[in-house]
Amino acid sequence: MNRTALEALLAEVAAGRVTPVEGLERLRHFPFEDLEFARLDHHRSLRQGQPEVVLAEGKTAEQVAGICERLHAATGGFLCTRASPEQAERLRARFPEVRWDPLGRTAYLPRGDRASPVGDPVLVVTAGTGDLPVAAEAAVTAEAWGANVERLNDVGVAGLHRLLHESEQLSRAGAIVVVAGMEGALPSVVGGLVDVPVIAVPTSVGYGASFGGIAALLGMLNSCAAGVTVVNIDNGFGAGVAAARIVTRVPGGP
Amino acid sequence: MNRTALEALLAEVAAGRVTPVEGLERLRHFPFEDLEFARLDHHRSLRQGQPEVVLAEGKTAEQVAGICERLHAATGGFLCTRASPEQAERLRARFPEVRWDPLGRTAYLPRGDRASPVGDPVLVVTAGTGDLPVAAEAAVTAEAWGANVERLNDVGVAGLHRLLHESEQLSRAGAIVVVAGMEGALPSVVGGLVDVPVIAVPTSVGYGASFGGIAALLGMLNSCAAGVTVVNIDNGFGAGVAAARIVTRVPGGP
Amino acid sequence: MNRTALEALLAEVAAGRVTPVEGLERLRHFPFEDLEFARLDHHRSLRQGQPEVVLAEGKTAEQVAGICERLHAATGGFLCTRASPEQAERLRARFPEVRWDPLGRTAYLPRGDRASPVGDPVLVVTAGTGDLPVAAEAAVTAEAWGANVERLNDVGVAGLHRLLHESEQLSRAGAIVVVAGMEGALPSVVGGLVDVPVIAVPTSVGYGASFGGIAALLGMLNSCAAGVTVVNIDNGFGAGVAAARIVTRVPGGP
Amino acid sequence: MNRTALEALLAEVAAGRVTPVEGLERLRHFPFEDLEFARLDHHRSLRQGQPEVVLAEGKTAEQVAGICERLHAATGGFLCTRASPEQAERLRARFPEVRWDPLGRTAYLPRGDRASPVGDPVLVVTAGTGDLPVAAEAAVTAEAWGANVERLNDVGVAGLHRLLHESEQLSRAGAIVVVAGMEGALPSVVGGLVDVPVIAVPTSVGYGASFGGIAALLGMLNSCAAGVTVVNIDNGFGAGVAAARIVTRVPGGP
Amino acid sequence: MNRTALEALLAEVAAGRVTPVEGLERLRHFPFEDLEFARLDHHRSLRQGQPEVVLAEGKTAEQVAGICERLHAATGGFLCTRASPEQAERLRARFPEVRWDPLGRTAYLPRGDRASPVGDPVLVVTAGTGDLPVAAEAAVTAEAWGANVERLNDVGVAGLHRLLHESEQLSRAGAIVVVAGMEGALPSVVGGLVDVPVIAVPTSVGYGASFGGIAALLGMLNSCAAGVTVVNIDNGFGAGVAAARIVTRVPGGP
Amino acid sequence: MNRTALEALLAEVAAGRVTPVEGLERLRHFPFEDLEFARLDHHRSLRQGQPEVVLAEGKTAEQVAGICERLHAATGGFLCTRASPEQAERLRARFPEVRWDPLGRTAYLPRGDRASPVGDPVLVVTAGTGDLPVAAEAAVTAEAWGANVERLNDVGVAGLHRLLHESEQLSRAGAIVVVAGMEGALPSVVGGLVDVPVIAVPTSVGYGASFGGIAALLGMLNSCAAGVTVVNIDNGFGAGVAAARIVTRVPGGP
Amino acid sequence: MNRTALEALLAEVAAGRVTPVEGLERLRHFPFEDLEFARLDHHRSLRQGQPEVVLAEGKTAEQVAGICERLHAATGGFLCTRASPEQAERLRARFPEVRWDPLGRTAYLPRGDRASPVGDPVLVVTAGTGDLPVAAEAAVTAEAWGANVERLNDVGVAGLHRLLHESEQLSRAGAIVVVAGMEGALPSVVGGLVDVPVIAVPTSVGYGASFGGIAALLGMLNSCAAGVTVVNIDNGFGAGVAAARIVTRVPGGP
Amino acid sequence: MNRTALEALLAEVAAGRVTPVEGLERLRHFPFEDLEFARLDHHRSLRQGQPEVVLAEGKTAEQVAGICERLHAATGGFLCTRASPEQAERLRARFPEVRWDPLGRTAYLPRGDRASPVGDPVLVVTAGTGDLPVAAEAAVTAEAWGANVERLNDVGVAGLHRLLHESEQLSRAGAIVVVAGMEGALPSVVGGLVDVPVIAVPTSVGYGASFGGIAALLGMLNSCAAGVTVVNIDNGFGAGVAAARIVTRVPGGP
Repeated sequence: MNRTALEALLAEVAAGRVTPVEGLERLRHFPFEDLEFARLDHHRSLRQGQPEVVLAEGKTAEQVAGICERLHAATGGFLCTRASPEQAERLRARFPEVRWDPLGRTAYLPRGDRASPVGDPVLVVTAGTGDLPVAAEAAVTAEAWGANVERLNDVGVAGLHRLLHESEQLSRAGAIVVVAGMEGALPSVVGGLVDVPVIAVPTSVGYGASFGGIAALLGMLNSCAAGVTVVNIDNGFGAGVAAARIVTRVPGGP
Repeated sequence: MNRTALEALLAEVAAGRVTPVEGLERLRHFPFEDLEFARLDHHRSLRQGQPEVVLAEGKTAEQVAGICERLHAATGGFLCTRASPEQAERLRARFPEVRWDPLGRTAYLPRGDRASPVGDPVLVVTAGTGDLPVAAEAAVTAEAWGANVERLNDVGVAGLHRLLHESEQLSRAGAIVVVAGMEGALPSVVGGLVDVPVIAVPTSVGYGASFGGIAALLGMLNSCAAGVTVVNIDNGFGAGVAAARIVTRVPGGP
Repeated sequence: MNRTALEALLAEVAAGRVTPVEGLERLRHFPFEDLEFARLDHHRSLRQGQPEVVLAEGKTAEQVAGICERLHAATGGFLCTRASPEQAERLRARFPEVRWDPLGRTAYLPRGDRASPVGDPVLVVTAGTGDLPVAAEAAVTAEAWGANVERLNDVGVAGLHRLLHESEQLSRAGAIVVVAGMEGALPSVVGGLVDVPVIAVPTSVGYGASFGGIAALLGMLNSCAAGVTVVNIDNGFGAGVAAARIVTRVPGGP
Repeated sequence: MNRTALEALLAEVAAGRVTPVEGLERLRHFPFEDLEFARLDHHRSLRQGQPEVVLAEGKTAEQVAGICERLHAATGGFLCTRASPEQAERLRARFPEVRWDPLGRTAYLPRGDRASPVGDPVLVVTAGTGDLPVAAEAAVTAEAWGANVERLNDVGVAGLHRLLHESEQLSRAGAIVVVAGMEGALPSVVGGLVDVPVIAVPTSVGYGASFGGIAALLGMLNSCAAGVTVVNIDNGFGAGVAAARIVTRVPGGP
Repeated sequence: MNRTALEALLAEVAAGRVTPVEGLERLRHFPFEDLEFARLDHHRSLRQGQPEVVLAEGKTAEQVAGICERLHAATGGFLCTRASPEQAERLRARFPEVRWDPLGRTAYLPRGDRASPVGDPVLVVTAGTGDLPVAAEAAVTAEAWGANVERLNDVGVAGLHRLLHESEQLSRAGAIVVVAGMEGALPSVVGGLVDVPVIAVPTSVGYGASFGGIAALLGMLNSCAAGVTVVNIDNGFGAGVAAARIVTRVPGGP
Repeated sequence: MNRTALEALLAEVAAGRVTPVEGLERLRHFPFEDLEFARLDHHRSLRQGQPEVVLAEGKTAEQVAGICERLHAATGGFLCTRASPEQAERLRARFPEVRWDPLGRTAYLPRGDRASPVGDPVLVVTAGTGDLPVAAEAAVTAEAWGANVERLNDVGVAGLHRLLHESEQLSRAGAIVVVAGMEGALPSVVGGLVDVPVIAVPTSVGYGASFGGIAALLGMLNSCAAGVTVVNIDNGFGAGVAAARIVTRVPGGP
Repeated sequence: MNRTALEALLAEVAAGRVTPVEGLERLRHFPFEDLEFARLDHHRSLRQGQPEVVLAEGKTAEQVAGICERLHAATGGFLCTRASPEQAERLRARFPEVRWDPLGRTAYLPRGDRASPVGDPVLVVTAGTGDLPVAAEAAVTAEAWGANVERLNDVGVAGLHRLLHESEQLSRAGAIVVVAGMEGALPSVVGGLVDVPVIAVPTSVGYGASFGGIAALLGMLNSCAAGVTVVNIDNGFGAGVAAARIVTRVPGGP
Repeated sequence: MNRTALEALLAEVAAGRVTPVEGLERLRHFPFEDLEFARLDHHRSLRQGQPEVVLAEGKTAEQVAGICERLHAATGGFLCTRASPEQAERLRARFPEVRWDPLGRTAYLPRGDRASPVGDPVLVVTAGTGDLPVAAEAAVTAEAWGANVERLNDVGVAGLHRLLHESEQLSRAGAIVVVAGMEGALPSVVGGLVDVPVIAVPTSVGYGASFGGIAALLGMLNSCAAGVTVVNIDNGFGAGVAAARIVTRVPGGP
C-alpha cells in the first residue's frame, strides 16, 4: 500500500464516506510494501499490537540494518533476534538507544507508543547455565510483547530442593516458560507443581545422544504433566510470544 | 494419607491448633493412597480444580473400572481417555450416566460440584475428517476443565476459502486448538490470522512419509507463525487441558 | 567416440550409405570423451536440447574451469551451479561474458544457438527471504532450459493476504516452483489455488527441529493438495529443469 | 453458501445486475456445504475440472458411501481411493456401474459430462510385481483426470535389457510415472533416457533396511537425472494427478 | 566337552594328577553341549553363580520346554523370561513348582542349592502403572541373582511429593532400578537424591513421539544426574542382573 | 541458605536444642548460594562425598575460573571436565597445583580432606587408540570419586587374543568401564568373561554409518551379555562416577 | 523374445550364418516373456548359471504357483524364498519333489542338469537360536548356487570359548556368512580370526533399541575387522548368493 | 610376547622339542607389543599376508609417524589411510619412497618381500567425479593386498550408454567394487550385468536428503540385484580388502 492509497483512504474517512471502523478494517487486510529482498507488513503491528521482528541469522549486517531502518520508519521500533555482535554493532551505530543483549543475542528498540506491561508475570525458568541464552531471548521477547517478566535460574531436576524452595515464585506466575536441555525433564516437574500454562523450550545444550536438542524435545513432548506445550529447539522467541499472549490476554477482547 | 491421619489433622483444625489455611496447605502436599497397581492422588483435584483422569489404553477393563470406582468415591467424577468400547461398556454398566463418546474414545462423568463454564470459548479446529477423533478428545477435555468449547471442522489449507469464510469465529476465541495430520500446515495459517494462543496437535493421519505423525509434528514445531505451541502426536487431551487453562485463568489468581 | 569414428560416420552419411536420420540416431547413443577426472557427454545437449551443467561444489576452481573449457568448446556454453566466488572469479577471467549470480551461485554462459524462450511462464515463488538463493538457482536454470520465468517473493503462509493478493499472477503460470523452508506449508496452499503442476523445493532454512530441511521436505511430501511433486532439499536446479520441461513441452513431440 | 444466498446470486445474474462472468467468479470462491463429518467443496470440480476424490482409508463403509452419495448428487461422479473390498462392495450395491479395481483399490464412477482423453500418453512404469498396486492407482487417477494412459511393467534396473527394449514406448510419452520400491533406482535410469517430465513414486515394497519405502524415497530424491520429481511413498494418486496435469495442459490456458 | 572328556578329567582329578583347583579351572573354560537348536553352556552357572536363563520370546512352547528340561537336568533350575501364557502353561505342567508371574512374564524355578539373599536391598521404582511389567521382570531377576528386592511404585515426576515422601526407603537401598516410560525423567530425580548406583530402564509406555521408548531412552542417557547408567528399552532382566551384581558383590572376591 | 540462617542453625546445635545428627540432616537438604550465572550447591559434596564438578564446554575461560574459584573456597577442590587448553591455562595460573590432563581434558584439584582410595580397582578398558580421551576422563573421575583405577588399552574385538591374554587383570576388577567406538562390540565380549558390573561407554570414534557414536551406543544397549549398562556417547565422566560408586560402596551404609 | 524370433535365430545358426558363439551371445541379451503380472527372464539362468528365484512374500499362493510353473517349464527348477506354509503346500501339491524348509521358508526344486557342488565350503555361522531362520535361507541358497555348505550355530560373542573351540572349521571355509541380531558383534570377531571374505547378515532378532535389526546392521557396517561386507537385514538369500559366487568362482573365467 | 619368551620358544624349536609347525602356530596366536598409545600386532601380517594399516584420521602427525616407524621396523612397510597433507609430509620426510596419493589420502610403503599381484583384476567403478577419492583408497588398498586393479570412472546410471559401452571390461573382472553417492543405484545396474561378486561403497557425495551417504547406503542395501554386498559409507579401504581377498584366494588354501 503506497502513500497515495493511504492518503486517499484517510481522505475518505475524513469525508465520512468511510467510517473509521471500515477504515481500520481495510488497513488490516492488505497493506504491505515491496523491498528488494523482503515484503514488510508494517500493519501487522497494528493487527497484533507488537513490534515487527527480524531474524538476523543468515542475513548480512547490511540487510539487517536495512530492514530495521524501514521498520523503525514505519512503526517506531523493532526486535532483532539471533543477532551477531557485528550485526548489533551496526544497529547500535545507527540506533544508539537500541538494547543489545549479547547473551540472548537480541537487539530491541521499543516503540514510543508502547503501553506499560500488564498482567501476572511470565516466569522464565532454566535448568542449567547453558540454557541462559535461550531464556534471555524468551524474556526480552515477552517483555517486548507487553508482559512483566521474572526469572528463576539453575533449578535442574538433579537438585530438586532448589526448585521446591521457590514454590512461591512459581505460584505467582500467570504463565511459565521452562528452558532445559539434556533430558528436558524440568517442565514435567514444574507442570506437576502449578496450574498455569507451562511452555517448554528444549535447548541444544548437551552432547552425544542429546542430538542437538532432540532428546530434550522428545522428553517435553512426552511430558506426563498435563498442560505442558512445546516449541522448537532453542526457540526462546516463540515461547516468549506465546507466554506474553497468555498473560496479557483480555477476556472478551480480540 | 490414611483415614487416621486425616481425622487427626481435622481434629487439630477443629481444636484451633491448626488454622484452616495451614490445614489446606498440609492437605495439598502429601495425601495419596495405595492401591494395588496405582497410587491415586485424590487431592490433585483440590489442587488443580479438575477431575482425575485415567488413561485407559494398556489397561484391562477390570483395572479401568477399579480405578474409576475409587476416583468416583473420592471426588465424585472422572475422565477416562483412550477407552475401548469394551472398557466403556464396563463403565456404563456401573455408571449409567457416564458420557461415552466413541469417536473421541472418552468416558466422562462430571463431578456434581462442577462450576459452569467460564471465559472466552476454546475453538477446536480440524484440517480433515481423519482428525476428528483427536479433536473430540480435546473438546471433551477442555469442557471437563471448565471451558466453553466451539468447533470448526474440515478447513484444511488446500481449500483456504473455507477457513477465511469463518474469520469471525476465529476472532471470537480465547484460545485455539488446531488439529491436523499430513503436512500439519493449518496451525501456521491460523496463527497468521489471530492474536490468541494457538495450540497445535499433530495427528497420525497420513501414510508413507507422514511417519505416523512425525511430518505434522515437525511442521508445527517449525511454524513460521509466532505464538504457536505444540503437544505430542494425537494428544488431544493435553491440548484440551492447556487451552482450558488459558481461557479459564483468572488474572491475579493461582 | 573419438575423432576417427566420428569422421568415418560422417563419411558414411555423405556417401549415402547411412541416412541422416540414422546418423543422428547413432550420434544420440554413444558419443562421449574421456577426461582425466570426468567423462563428458557432449551429445546430451543434442539429445535433451539444453546446456551441459557442472556442479561446482566439491571441485577445485581448477577442475571447474577445465570442465567448462571443454564444454564451451564442444557446445558453445555451460551452466555452472553451486559455484563459490573463487570459482566464479576464475570462470569470469576466462569467459568475461559469463552471467554470475552470487545469490543463486550460478555462472551461466548461454549457447549462441539458443532459441527464444517459449510457452507460459514458470513462476518461482518463495516463502521467506532465506529461500531466495534456492529460488535464484531455479530461475536461472529454467531460463537456461528455454522457459520464460517470473518471480513472486516473500508470500509465506503466516501472512496469507500477500499471496491471495497475487492470484492473477498465479493463474497466468504454466508451472509453479514453490520454494520454502521451515514447515514447508506454502506448496499446499498454492496447490489449492491453481490447476497447473506445482513443484515444491524444500530449503534448509530454519533451525532446531527443521533438521536442515527435513521438516519442510516431509511437509511437502505429505501435501494435502493433489498434483504437488517434490525435489531434493535446496535443489533449485532440479526444480528449474522439471518446470521448464513442462512449459516448453510441445504436444506430440519427443 | 446456503440456498438463499445461491438464489439471491442467481437472481442478481438474471436481473443483469451481475454478469455471468462475475457470477462464475463468485461461485468459484466460496461454495461449500456442511455435512456432519466433512465439508464438501462441490465447486472444486468446476474450478479444477476433475472428479471429487474420497480417501477411503480410515473411514467406515458407511461414511464412504455417505460421502460418495453426496458427491454423486452434486457432480455426477467420484473417485474413491484406498478402498477396501467391503467399502467397494457397499459402493457397488448403490452404484452398479462403479469401476472397482481390487489391485489398485480404486472405485471410480466417471461423470457423464466427462470429455475424451487428450494429449500425449502418460506412461506408468513399474520396477517389479510388488509395485503394481500403486501403479494401478496412478493409472486410474490419470485417466480420471483426462489423460491417455499406457503401461510398462517389470523393467527393474537389475535387468536393463528389458527397459532398453522398450525405448520407443518411452519416447512416445508426454509424462512418465515411474513406480519402484527397494532401492528406487529406476527413475534415475528412465530420467537419463528421456526428455519429458518424470514423476517418481517410491513404494513400500521391500524389507529390512527399506524401512517401508524410505530407501526408495531417498534414492529418488537424490536422483542424478535432472527433471525427476517425487511424491509420497505409495502415492499413486498424487503422481497420476500431476502427470495428467502435464499432458492435458493447454498452453495459454488456466 | 563330551562325556568322555569329562570322565577323563575327573579321573585325572581323582588320581591326584590334576588338583581340584586345576580341575575347576578347566571346567570353567570349555564345557558346552550341542542341542539341535541351541548350545547350552551348563557351566556358566558355575562360572557366574546364577541360574541359566531362557528368552522365551520367538521360540515355540515346545522349544522352551525342551531347553528348560535340559537346564533343569544340568543345574536344577532355570529362569524363563518373556514367556507367553501358553509357554508358561507348558512349563507348569512339567514343573508344578515353577513360579509364574503373568505380569512380568517370568517363569522361575530356583535351584535347590541356592543361597539366601545377601546385601543391601535392590529397590525397584516405577513411574506409572504401565511400567509395572518391566519392573516385575527386574525384580524376579534380581531375586534369582541372589539379591533382596524392595518395590516402590507410581512415583512419577509430575507428582513429586509422592517420591519425596519415601526418602527413607530410597536411602536404604544398595542399588536402585528406576523403570519409566514417556519422558523418562524419574532416574534424574532419583539420581539427585541418592549416592548409590542408579540403573535406568526405559519402557515402551507412551504414544506418538515416545517412539516406542526412544524418548525415555534418550532422556535417561542424557540424565543430568551423575552415576545413572541405562539398559535397553523394556530390559528389566538386564537391569535386575546388573543391580544384583552390585549389591551381592563381595569386595576382594571374583 | 544465607549466613544468618547458618549461624542460627549452628547456635541451635551448640545450645543442644538441635542434635548434631539433626543438624547434618538439615544441612543436607537446602543449602545453596546464588551466583550470577549458576547456583552452586556447596553441600552436595557433603551429601555425596565427592568434589564439585564443572562442565567447562560452552563456558568462557572467565566463567570457568569464576566457578572454580567459588568451589575451591567452599570445598577445597574441584574437578573440571571438557576443558580447553585455554581454560586449563587460566586455571593453572590461579591454581598451580591443578592436575591438567590434555588427553582427557580434565583439570582436577583434589580436596585436602580426601581419603585414600578404597576397594577393588575400577578397570578402564579401551578398544582402540581413538577411545583414549574418553577413557582418560573416566579414569580421572573414578579416582576423584575415591576409587583405585587400572587401565587396559587397545584390546578391540578384531584381535581377541590380546584381550584373552589379560584375563587375570579382568578378574581382579570390582567394576569394569569399557570404552569403544565403531561397532561397540567390546563390552559384550568383556561381559561374557566376567561377573562384575560392566559399564559401557560408546565413543564418537568412527565415520560414515557410525553416526557420531550411535552405532556403538545401539550395539551396547543390545548387548547379549547380561549385566552390561550404558552411559551417553563420550560420557567418560558418568561412567567413572558410576563405577566408583560400585567399588567404594560400603554395604549397610548410605 | 517370441518363438518366431527364436526359431529364426536357430535357423541362422543351423545355416552357418551365425556361429554358435554369436548365437549364445544373442540369447544372453534379450530374451524375456510377458506374463500378466511379471516378466520372466528365462535366460538369466543361462547367463548366471543358477535357478530362477521367486520372492513369495506379498504374492498370493496362486501367483506363486503360476510363476513357479512357468519357471519349471522353462528351466527345470526354481528357488522360492519367504514362502508361507500355505504357499508351500500349494507348491508341494504340484511338485511333490520340492524341498520345503519351514524354518528358512524356502521351497527349492533343483534343476536336473545341475552340477555337483564345487570349491571350499561356505560356512554359515549364527550367534543365537533366533538367527537360525535367516541362516537356513542363506544355506539353501548357497547350495542352490552350487556351493558346499557347512553350519556352525550358537556361537555368540558373550561366550567366546564356544567360537574359539571351532577354529579349525573356520579355517577350512572359503567364505563365511555370519548371521547375528542384537548388537551384531559376531562378524567382527570372526573377521579377526580368518583371512577369507566374511559376509555379515544382520537379523531383526532383538527388541527395544535393536530397532528391527538396525543396531546389528550398524554394528556390522562399522566393523573394525577389515574385509567384512554386509547385506540387508534378514537377507539370507543375498548372502548365500554372494558367498557361493566367491567359492565357486573359477579364476580366469567369466 | 616379550623378547625372553620369543627366545625361549625359538630355543625349543631349535632343540627339536617343538616342531616348526607348532612354533608357527604358537606365534600366530599371541604376539603383540605395548606402545604407549596402541598395541601393535606385528604378527597379524604373518597371519593375514598383508601390510599393517594405520588410520591416520584423528591422530596427530607425531602419532602417525611414530606408529609407522614401528610398523616399518617390524614388517618392512605400512599402509596409512585418511592421511592429511601434513601427516603425509611428515611421513615423506622420514620415508622418501612412500607413495602418497593426495586424492585417496593414502600413504603406502610396500614391503620388500611383497609378491607380484595375482588373479583376475579387481575393477573399481565410479558413478561420478565426486566418488574418485573413495575409489582411489579402494584401489590402493586392493593393490597393497596383492590384487591387480583396473579402473572405470564416471559411468553413472543417468547415462547408461557409457556403462554398456564397457561391458567387456566388466566381464573380465574377478570382483567389482562400485563406488557411488547420491541415490547409489549403480551397483544394482552393474550387479545385473555380471556374475562375479560386487562390493558396493556408498559415498557421502550429495546434499540435502542424501544425508551424508545414508541415501546411497540404503539404496545399496536394498539392491534388487543378487550378490551385491555393502561396506560403510566412504569405506574404500574395506572394499579394497574384501575384493582383493576374493580374487587372490587360492581354493583349498587357508
